[in-house]
Amino acid sequence: MAERAGNSDAVERLRERLTGGRLLSVRRALHALNPAELASLLESLPPRHRRLVWNMVERDDEGEVLLHLGEEVRAGLMREMDVKELVAAAGDLDIDDLADLIEHLPESVTQQVVKALDTQDRARLERVLAYEADSAGGLMNTDAVTVRGDVTLDVVQRYLRLRGELPPHTDALFVVDRQGHYRGVLTLERVLTRDAETLVSAVMDEERTALPATLAAERVAQHFEDADLLSAAVIDEQGLLLGRITVDDVLDVIRKDAERKLMSLAGLTEDEDIFAPVRGATRRRAIWLGINLLTAFLASSVVDLFQGTISQVVALAVLMPIVASMGGIGGSQTLTLMIRGLALGQIGSGNTRFLLRKELLVAAINGLLWALVVGAVALLWFKSWPLALVVGLAIVINQTIAALAGIFVPLTLKRMGIDPALAGSVILTTFTDVCGFFSLLALGTLILL
Amino acid sequence: MAERAGNSDAVERLRERLTGGRLLSVRRALHALNPAELASLLESLPPRHRRLVWNMVERDDEGEVLLHLGEEVRAGLMREMDVKELVAAAGDLDIDDLADLIEHLPESVTQQVVKALDTQDRARLERVLAYEADSAGGLMNTDAVTVRGDVTLDVVQRYLRLRGELPPHTDALFVVDRQGHYRGVLTLERVLTRDAETLVSAVMDEERTALPATLAAERVAQHFEDADLLSAAVIDEQGLLLGRITVDDVLDVIRKDAERKLMSLAGLTEDEDIFAPVRGATRRRAIWLGINLLTAFLASSVVDLFQGTISQVVALAVLMPIVASMGGIGGSQTLTLMIRGLALGQIGSGNTRFLLRKELLVAAINGLLWALVVGAVALLWFKSWPLALVVGLAIVINQTIAALAGIFVPLTLKRMGIDPALAGSVILTTFTDVCGFFSLLALGTLILL
Repeated sequence: MAERAGNSDAVERLRERLTGGRLLSVRRALHALNPAELASLLESLPPRHRRLVWNMVERDDEGEVLLHLGEEVRAGLMREMDVKELVAAAGDLDIDDLADLIEHLPESVTQQVVKALDTQDRARLERVLAYEADSAGGLMNTDAVTVRGDVTLDVVQRYLRLRGELPPHTDALFVVDRQGHYRGVLTLERVLTRDAETLVSAVMDEERTALPATLAAERVAQHFEDADLLSAAVIDEQGLLLGRITVDDVLDVIRKDAERKLMSLAGLTEDEDIFAPVRGATRRRAIWLGINLLTAFLASSVVDLFQGTISQVVALAVLMPIVASMGGIGGSQTLTLMIRGLALGQIGSGNTRFLLRKELLVAAINGLLWALVVGAVALLWFKSWPLALVVGLAIVINQTIAALAGIFVPLTLKRMGIDPALAGSVILTTFTDVCGFFSLLALGTLILL
Repeated sequence: MAERAGNSDAVERLRERLTGGRLLSVRRALHALNPAELASLLESLPPRHRRLVWNMVERDDEGEVLLHLGEEVRAGLMREMDVKELVAAAGDLDIDDLADLIEHLPESVTQQVVKALDTQDRARLERVLAYEADSAGGLMNTDAVTVRGDVTLDVVQRYLRLRGELPPHTDALFVVDRQGHYRGVLTLERVLTRDAETLVSAVMDEERTALPATLAAERVAQHFEDADLLSAAVIDEQGLLLGRITVDDVLDVIRKDAERKLMSLAGLTEDEDIFAPVRGATRRRAIWLGINLLTAFLASSVVDLFQGTISQVVALAVLMPIVASMGGIGGSQTLTLMIRGLALGQIGSGNTRFLLRKELLVAAINGLLWALVVGAVALLWFKSWPLALVVGLAIVINQTIAALAGIFVPLTLKRMGIDPALAGSVILTTFTDVCGFFSLLALGTLILL
């Protein structure tokens, strides 16, 4: 999530005017913003102002703006739009954008929107809707401009002149055969720089692989990054050209994916509206707190086992938080490396053992180092060698267990098909708390009593 | 960080061959990978295999591959390259890429690389190096193709045919005046679709704003996203065209920024090599553990104040972890929303108070809810109404404080110019631990003794 500072200054000023109730100047300022900026303004407004501004947005922009909004904010605004308005908003969109939006429209509206389309667009829309929203087919736009390989660049040029405008973000035309099978890519650059008499087939790029419509969005993004693409063809199982994906859609995929990773660490979704109504927000967070409570009870039931020890050596209760939190930090460092490594496809059978050895070594060394420090402090604090020994040992043990958990928790979650970024930290800290308390209190019972 | 699954299958297979020592087949397979894929393979290999593969990479690719590597991995490989090799690798790069790499080259090598360039490229390189790496000027490439506004599209076309190939990712030409001041953008699409006799000035896009060379990389990325650009002109204070930024560079900026946010939550940097030598990794992590230890001591010194209470009511020691961790979770949820909100520029004077009220309300309601649950459990567990009351109150208090901290810690850090994502969670959990322990034990002393 890069700084939106690009427009946040303008947005900031607008917010102040809103609070100042200077609506006229707001209306004027709004026209200066593009849909994406309007969306981020709306997301940054409390409900009342949000509705106010939304009503000032020009009809033609409404569809575009809705698309740039997080799901929760979008749903909130659409709930208050009447059908006519929704149909109008949807009408102005590209097919791929329309497909995204339609999934959030009530059935009744969807039908009217589809009715409003001409047969060609309807066919296109159905083609996009046939695929998961987070697949190449769901991301694609159906406005790809195609040419045949057996014509000259001169013919292509005359065709383009006749055709007039090209769809936005058109950096290349797609070459297809009679049946519509994808054959290759003809960049506008080639059309302009090569001799007009050469055949398309002679200058097209056949290397450029087309993306299967079922390819996952994340893989699409990776392909764009690795091959530095501006656009790519999307094909079906038979190799027929279905449409194209442009890099601006890929930007959204990457941004969303990054937001999801950050938010899920706190049990939130990337669509969480920062100004959400209290009721919904409370409910969503309660779930995460509840899950965490269960794990917390687990930890404290371990402490419960040693009530006798604690009542005799209260210092152990004082040192409990240190052992637990050091383990939590150490483990989360390993966990974070693993989460990224798994996301980047860096981790596999080939190197897990090496990784495990390395992380265990790092944890053990740091464990020893900080065990000495904490032990020394404990000695000065409580004037007890045995206690210093106990807390020191507990830390070494817990740091090592933390590393093990940091490696195996994400691996196991991944194997179970659960996003390690989502559940990882809760499970990990459960390990480090339980083991931290247990090692400290068990050792205390053995050595100090 | 999207799944790199796109190439991770191939990478996975390669890793297995490496472990199997089937080097010949590895060498063959390597040729199938592009620089980005080679880079992510190298990053996913333990040191020994990494060196093995690196030596198999073709000379011409080395520069490109180095660029796609994380700083730490890159530095590791470059340390083992001799000057000739480094100069060769650097020689094959675009100016903007070369500029990125040069910052990591030893002075001696840099000079030889620069000597190897022709005067024009040397001038270009200096132009790029004049700006921060994470500014528009540092991101830009100097290969922008320029035309004058007072010529016809026909002339442009003949010029392009003469010129032959255009630089990669050229979707538009830039229109400049005699002195080289930026005037507007002429997309290839217009050149191809408009009448050949029209003047450039008549069909160029003057709206498209050029980016000041000093603009921060994050703002550049935001501008690309909001305006859906494929490329943008970069200008100096006088409005002279310096170069252009293409969307593929923007993808890297966004990816890096996202990685930094995730890694910094664990006190790591996005350049951390998952297979880093133990020594360095241990040192870097030790710092973070040390910082955390200080905060942990703070928490346990609070517990220390109440040794007397704990020795009489050991159950309080059992419940300590619950109060603390519930506060930590609640607070981190607010913190995460704030970190994203600040990154997206959604939070400002206009709405902080609304936000505070909402988060406090959410926290209070959840606090009450879970206070009842924990209170009930405590009652069943320890058969003590007063104890149930104490832990319940402590939770309500701590959840509320957690929300306050979740709002004000990031705001304060931001004002101090510190990245909230980096220091936020440590400071927040310090608050929630200290306040959690204190409220529980202080209330316990008042009510239970």
